[in-house]
Amino acid sequence: MTSTRVAVLGTGLVGTSIAMAAIRAGDRPVGWDADAGHAARAAERGGFAAAASLEEAVHDADLVIVASPIGTLADVSLRALGASTAAVVSDAGSVKGAVVREVTAGAGEDARRFVGGHPMGGSERSGPDHASASVVDDIVWVLTPTPASDPVAVDRLEAWIRSIGARPMRMEPSRHDRLVGFVSHLPQIAATSLMGLVADEEAGEPEILLLAAGGFRDLTRLAASNPGLWSEILLSNRAAISEAVGLYVERLLRLRDLIGAAAGEDVRSAFATAKAARLSLAAKPQVRSGVAVMQVPIPDRPGALAQLTAALGESGVNIEDLQIVHSPEGGRGVVHLMVAATSADVAATTLAAQGFDPTRLA
Amino acid sequence: MTSTRVAVLGTGLVGTSIAMAAIRAGDRPVGWDADAGHAARAAERGGFAAAASLEEAVHDADLVIVASPIGTLADVSLRALGASTAAVVSDAGSVKGAVVREVTAGAGEDARRFVGGHPMGGSERSGPDHASASVVDDIVWVLTPTPASDPVAVDRLEAWIRSIGARPMRMEPSRHDRLVGFVSHLPQIAATSLMGLVADEEAGEPEILLLAAGGFRDLTRLAASNPGLWSEILLSNRAAISEAVGLYVERLLRLRDLIGAAAGEDVRSAFATAKAARLSLAAKPQVRSGVAVMQVPIPDRPGALAQLTAALGESGVNIEDLQIVHSPEGGRGVVHLMVAATSADVAATTLAAQGFDPTRLA
Repeated sequence: MTSTRVAVLGTGLVGTSIAMAAIRAGDRPVGWDADAGHAARAAERGGFAAAASLEEAVHDADLVIVASPIGTLADVSLRALGASTAAVVSDAGSVKGAVVREVTAGAGEDARRFVGGHPMGGSERSGPDHASASVVDDIVWVLTPTPASDPVAVDRLEAWIRSIGARPMRMEPSRHDRLVGFVSHLPQIAATSLMGLVADEEAGEPEILLLAAGGFRDLTRLAASNPGLWSEILLSNRAAISEAVGLYVERLLRLRDLIGAAAGEDVRSAFATAKAARLSLAAKPQVRSGVAVMQVPIPDRPGALAQLTAALGESGVNIEDLQIVHSPEGGRGVVHLMVAATSADVAATTLAAQGFDPTRLA
Repeated sequence: MTSTRVAVLGTGLVGTSIAMAAIRAGDRPVGWDADAGHAARAAERGGFAAAASLEEAVHDADLVIVASPIGTLADVSLRALGASTAAVVSDAGSVKGAVVREVTAGAGEDARRFVGGHPMGGSERSGPDHASASVVDDIVWVLTPTPASDPVAVDRLEAWIRSIGARPMRMEPSRHDRLVGFVSHLPQIAATSLMGLVADEEAGEPEILLLAAGGFRDLTRLAASNPGLWSEILLSNRAAISEAVGLYVERLLRLRDLIGAAAGEDVRSAFATAKAARLSLAAKPQVRSGVAVMQVPIPDRPGALAQLTAALGESGVNIEDLQIVHSPEGGRGVVHLMVAATSADVAATTLAAQGFDPTRLA
């Protein structure tokens, strides 16, 4: 495929980043946003042209990526299909079933040019000012073609995704939604529910959070996410969420009942199974050789963490993950460090030479 | 109070650390362990005497701290009360109701010399080799006296805890157990259940973890904890856990039902309440001025994190918390950084001067 004429509809963080990755790959993208000022800012940041209307943006396009807010995806995709005759249209929403259903039902013959998509990255910040071509580097970009989709359109889209640096993965819309229900939406609900529960308790027990340690903070970090965005996402994945929450609740109650029945062996076994699964969950999938987890006590003063990370950097050890675990009352800190298993010995030697006292956990 | 003759029964990480903190405060502790080799190693590490028997250890003591495995706490405490005539005996178990009940019922008149305790720190590592006096620095040390406890004994214990650097906090045994049920035991159960659920799903959906991002890792980190230890802890706090899991499940189902009913305003409101609570949960209680949370994109190469932490260290900014958030597929990383709110401007300026692009989240 030579240079592709790409139209990006919706120039927030994801849309602008995709446009910037397209430029990097030699394409000439054009951007449009329902908010013209938004589009102008994005175009300036990304170095692409802003179109005055959706129709102008897609008129000439080979490929249209719809990255507008989740509630508008189907409508904008239908408008894009209607305003073009040959462009492949895809979206960038984090839930796929509803959009794919609506567009397929509403587009008639044009539905063959539509393929749902979900580029899985870059959602931590928002707005074009934080966009970057690197947002799409190596990310999994799920595509959800249906029997109505033209296989040639799917192939073209897939090739283009590869050309801008991401990794396409085909999946049925309902399967995608079911899986993100478990690993993305359920954690969000679990964190929000735990934080809400303890916040209610705190009203009558103001000292409760003095007893909360790092584990509680881990479990509730996600509760600080954007309420409006998450409400939209969750409402558009109701069936998958209902299943995931239902299975989660069953499992919680089963474990509660085992504990209540003092079935020590069964409780131990449930914990051992989960522990094995958690340890096999590599920090990042590309660390094929496995990771080593180390625990390093660290004094709570400016510069201490710098000394640790500088020493590892000088020894060529890449830190895969690092988390500071404080005691519930602060003071001392312990760092949980994850490095490639092949770097574990170098990391341990380096840290010991600097006066640290690392323990390998896994 | 002048130098206290302290006997520590059980010389694992917690017991040995307490003995070391006592030495630092000018006491002359003696240690005993059911495993004599264990006691000898601890005594060498800590610089205290190892007693040949429990009776020898407590014979002469003013104060006895029982830090043996949770299942043995009541028995060892009763033996210590029986082998001494005036010593105040306390334990270091993480669940209080059962121990306090058993000792109070079994000790007769001697129960007045017993006060349950829970020093809340130092549990991340185990064994005397990782013990340190600093493990007790500034930690909350819960004491759970009952009407049977002699108020003079409680006062003496409390003064001693202060003398070795920790912060005593009185609480009824059942209240302690209820609160740790919510903020310590429930998170453990929630993490283990989520990891177990997704591990089961993975059997039929091998690609599921390719869609898992940092949030899933946060929510399941605790699942890698010690199964045997946690089984013991949970089984000894069954009533509190039953209540906490029950309320958590109710809340999960309520949120699921709101999502199922597409009650967007109610879902948004549940998320907004939890978000406000999470943001007000300071990284560490002593950071009274509040904390600032920043997000900083960071290249995934050796030395990048070192540059960030070194720059902050040189500017005198103490990092309260730091977590690397990877995209599900690795590559770019984003650091979530927590600093005291009063240091936020300096941190932002310092990072920008080094070419980083921090965004303040809270």
